[in-house]
Amino acid sequence: MTSQTLSFTILGTGALGGFYGARLLHHGFQVRFIAHSDADYMRQHGLRVDSPLGDLHHFPVDVYRASDEIPQSDVVCVALKTTQNHQLVDLLRPLVRPGTVILNFQNGLTMEEALSEAFPDSPVVAGLCFLCSNKLGPGHIAHLDYGLVSFAPQDARGQAWVPRLMDAFASSGVKVERFPSLLKARWRKLAWNIPFNGLSVVLDANTDSIMRDPDARALAEQLMAEVALGAAACGAPFDAGFTAKLLEVTEAMTPYAPSMRLDYLAKRALEIEFMYDRPLREVAKLGVRLPAVEAIARQLHFLDRRNRQGDT
Amino acid sequence: MTSQTLSFTILGTGALGGFYGARLLHHGFQVRFIAHSDADYMRQHGLRVDSPLGDLHHFPVDVYRASDEIPQSDVVCVALKTTQNHQLVDLLRPLVRPGTVILNFQNGLTMEEALSEAFPDSPVVAGLCFLCSNKLGPGHIAHLDYGLVSFAPQDARGQAWVPRLMDAFASSGVKVERFPSLLKARWRKLAWNIPFNGLSVVLDANTDSIMRDPDARALAEQLMAEVALGAAACGAPFDAGFTAKLLEVTEAMTPYAPSMRLDYLAKRALEIEFMYDRPLREVAKLGVRLPAVEAIARQLHFLDRRNRQGDT
Repeated sequence: MTSQTLSFTILGTGALGGFYGARLLHHGFQVRFIAHSDADYMRQHGLRVDSPLGDLHHFPVDVYRASDEIPQSDVVCVALKTTQNHQLVDLLRPLVRPGTVILNFQNGLTMEEALSEAFPDSPVVAGLCFLCSNKLGPGHIAHLDYGLVSFAPQDARGQAWVPRLMDAFASSGVKVERFPSLLKARWRKLAWNIPFNGLSVVLDANTDSIMRDPDARALAEQLMAEVALGAAACGAPFDAGFTAKLLEVTEAMTPYAPSMRLDYLAKRALEIEFMYDRPLREVAKLGVRLPAVEAIARQLHFLDRRNRQGDT
Repeated sequence: MTSQTLSFTILGTGALGGFYGARLLHHGFQVRFIAHSDADYMRQHGLRVDSPLGDLHHFPVDVYRASDEIPQSDVVCVALKTTQNHQLVDLLRPLVRPGTVILNFQNGLTMEEALSEAFPDSPVVAGLCFLCSNKLGPGHIAHLDYGLVSFAPQDARGQAWVPRLMDAFASSGVKVERFPSLLKARWRKLAWNIPFNGLSVVLDANTDSIMRDPDARALAEQLMAEVALGAAACGAPFDAGFTAKLLEVTEAMTPYAPSMRLDYLAKRALEIEFMYDRPLREVAKLGVRLPAVEAIARQLHFLDRRNRQGDT
């Protein structure tokens, strides 16, 4: 099987799944989208992605609801928020046959272990996305910046798939890289996500406000240093200079509302469990505590609960 | 000199100084009030305190501006917020002669050391106030609940004054207690102030919302446990069961907006330096870090700065 013949099912047609699915479709791959509330709209109007890479409008597109009979694809891309993970295995069950590759785009820690456990016959690969995009409305995505996917295999079977997946995405105009250690890749991403997603919600601030305030910036650094401790404890230490570089990059970014902030403002559930609680649980198993990360996680749970229950 | 002949100058006629000054005045002590923006109003309308202990309206009252010639009193009560402490010594200079007692009502850590240093010939006593009162307007205070003053001397000279001060306040209808160790008294007060003042601002929540949410409550306990570590490091360990009791009391309190929250909502400067930065600095000298307290302090600095500069 060459990469040109690959077919993809995109589970979750939001800012992330919509963007990557549209790129793959544009290059001629067969792409099946699973949408929830937007399915009817997308059947009538297709999928639109505004992007500095060129605006795309695909019509018609193959759209399914999760409950539909869905043809088998070679690759199933998980592009749901982790707040849906209590139903993820059930959603994947009809999509995954022995040999189906599961490509997981989610943020956090421990998601791929759960996938491998539930689907022991399927290769699992993580695709860590460095993407800035928003969903504007049903079937309408605005890609703002970036887009790199960093591919990291969960196991040897996943590893064998990485080159083909990279090839497919690269040929679709997506920047790709390969990261040999999934654990290290996950922790590196947490080094940014834990400080900036959480603080953007708790402080009601974008990255630029955080970076230019001496105390908010010091707190971001404090959190990042704790994540570095956690990564090292888990056997995935950061390279020297990595966190300093990450702060530099963040400083140079255009003002940016992290996804958790957008979720909060839209009163959607926050991805606290996989981004905070799971990393804290993993390091706790090793006798390590990250007190400032704990504090932020608890603040987020409080704010999330109040935000969605209207309970003040 | 018997306590009946004592005279008092109240530096700062807000929710706290106004309440205690009115009680002392009611019992017949000579009380001089120093007010800032409210001085003219109080000269024309006096001082009004609504209270479950009985409403008081004193007219006329002795009101001064700090720049006026002010007659000497035996006791100067410091009832300014610590956010004014950069000018406190200058304000006290004309009020304090050798032998004048300085009774400090402020919240935080290290204030009395600075006072003793600036006024080496004056006894210094801390009066830790457990008071729930608000200023409603110029010369108008609403006393809601509590009112205990815990007297703790800064040094031996202060200690000799404690009984006379206690007698004066007790005879004015104020509950009093004596606390032999100032350091211990200060840390015990921080055990409540650090969690609940800070979280009330950062989470935009009153004490009851914090206590009934499992994560916010766990965070309050985390912060309190760090304060206990700090207290122990400084040689002022809490008694067994103290923090558990404090949480119980907080749970039983009527819903309450801590003073820092009221300051924040009124866009006044927050007492972060003496309530957070100084305790952190004192424990840092001993090689101890309180990471969650640090995190909250940094959040407060960020929020305070934005709140008062309108900078988003």
